[in-house]
Amino acid sequence: MRTLYHLWLSPFSRKVRLVLAEKDLAFEMSVEKIWERRPDFLALNPAGQVPVLIDDEGPDGPVTLCDSGAICEYLEEAYPKRGLIPGIPTDRAEVRRLVAWFDCKFYEEVTRNLVGEKILKRFLGLGEPSSEAIRAGLTNIHYHLDYIGYLCERRTWLAGDHLSLADLAAAAHLSCVDYLGNVPWEEHAEAKEWYARVKSRPAFRPLLADRIPGVSPPKHYADLDF
Amino acid sequence: MRTLYHLWLSPFSRKVRLVLAEKDLAFEMSVEKIWERRPDFLALNPAGQVPVLIDDEGPDGPVTLCDSGAICEYLEEAYPKRGLIPGIPTDRAEVRRLVAWFDCKFYEEVTRNLVGEKILKRFLGLGEPSSEAIRAGLTNIHYHLDYIGYLCERRTWLAGDHLSLADLAAAAHLSCVDYLGNVPWEEHAEAKEWYARVKSRPAFRPLLADRIPGVSPPKHYADLDF
Repeated sequence: MRTLYHLWLSPFSRKVRLVLAEKDLAFEMSVEKIWERRPDFLALNPAGQVPVLIDDEGPDGPVTLCDSGAICEYLEEAYPKRGLIPGIPTDRAEVRRLVAWFDCKFYEEVTRNLVGEKILKRFLGLGEPSSEAIRAGLTNIHYHLDYIGYLCERRTWLAGDHLSLADLAAAAHLSCVDYLGNVPWEEHAEAKEWYARVKSRPAFRPLLADRIPGVSPPKHYADLDF
Repeated sequence: MRTLYHLWLSPFSRKVRLVLAEKDLAFEMSVEKIWERRPDFLALNPAGQVPVLIDDEGPDGPVTLCDSGAICEYLEEAYPKRGLIPGIPTDRAEVRRLVAWFDCKFYEEVTRNLVGEKILKRFLGLGEPSSEAIRAGLTNIHYHLDYIGYLCERRTWLAGDHLSLADLAAAAHLSCVDYLGNVPWEEHAEAKEWYARVKSRPAFRPLLADRIPGVSPPKHYADLDF
C-alpha cells in the first residue's frame, strides 16, 4: 500500500491527496509531526518537510518521493491515466505557471500569513500569531480571488478546458484557509462558483472530513452548497 | 529571436539562462526592473516576477512563459535534445526533488538572506539589510555545502550519473552568493570540486561575465581555477 506522510492543514499535502484520489490510486495516510524531527522521517526526507510519498506499487518498483511538485510530476508520469497536466508543452506550461502561482505566490501572501500564523506557529512553538501578518493575509486574499474570477470568466477551469493540477493546487490552499473561515466567498461570486465545482468532486470529500484537534472548521466548510 | 526578461542576480533567471545555453538555444536578454511594475511587463506576467521567456521559435508557435519551473519543464519538453531531466520517472523525481531543495529551501535559508538582503532590498527600496538575516544566511550555507558534498561522495553529479537541472539550479543559487564573496569554498572541498566542474562548462561562461552596477564581485568569482 502507498503511504503519504502529511499534515492536515498542509496545502502541499492536500494537493498530493487530491492528485492521488483523482487518479484513483489507493493510499494510507500517516500524520508526521515535522516539528519533532523524527530521525526515521529525516532519513526519508532530509528536508524534514511533508508531503512524502512512499509508492511501493510504482511501475519501476518501490520509491520514496519528496517535495509536492516532484511527487505530482512523478504521479503524472507513472500513472498517465486521468492526466492532470494535459495538452501540448505550451498548455502544460500554463498549468505549471498556475501551480507555481498558488504554491509560491498565494502561499507566501495568504496561506503562510493565515494558516502558518494561526495553526503551524502554535505547533512549532514559535509564539503568538502576528496580527500584522494576519491582516496582510486577509487583505491579499481578495486579489487572488479576483484573479481566479478573471480566469474563470475566460476558461472553464483555471488553466483551460480541463480540470488540471492548477485547480487542485489552488483548491488545496483555499481549503486550508477556508477551514479557518477566512475566505470571503460572498464578495467573489465567480471564485465561489469555481470552488463549488472542485469541492463537489469525489476526490475532495476526504479533505472535507478532516478535523484538526482543538480547531473546528466553520459550518460551511464541509457544505457543498455553501 | 527568443527573449528572456531577467535580473542579474536572480537565481531563477540564471537557472533558465543555463538551461537555454546547455540546450544551445539562442536568446536575447532584457533586464526587467520588476520594482518599477511596468504595465507592459505585468501584461506578460501578472505575478510581476522574472524570469519570463518569450519563445517565438517554439515547435508549437510563439509562446510567453512565466515561472522558472514551468519554463524549464517547457524547454525540456519542447527541446528534448541534451535532456536535463533524464531517466525513468523515479530518476526524474530525484532531479525535481533537488531542484526544489535549492529553489525553495536553499533560497529561503541562504539566497534570500544574503542576495535578497544585500542587493534586492536596496533596489526595492525596502531599507537597510538585516544583520540578523545575513548572519543566518552565512550560518545556513555550511549545511547546504555539506549536503552537496554528501551527494557528490555518492554520485557523479547531484542527482546521479548525469549533469541535470539539479546541478544547474544549485549552481545558479551558489553563483549569486559567490558574486557577493559569501561562499566558504575553502571549508567544503567536495562542494568546491563539484562547482568547479559546473563552472567550467561553456554554458556557465556568460554568468561569470555579469557585472552589477556598483557591486564588484571578488576576484575568484570568474576564475575557473579558484
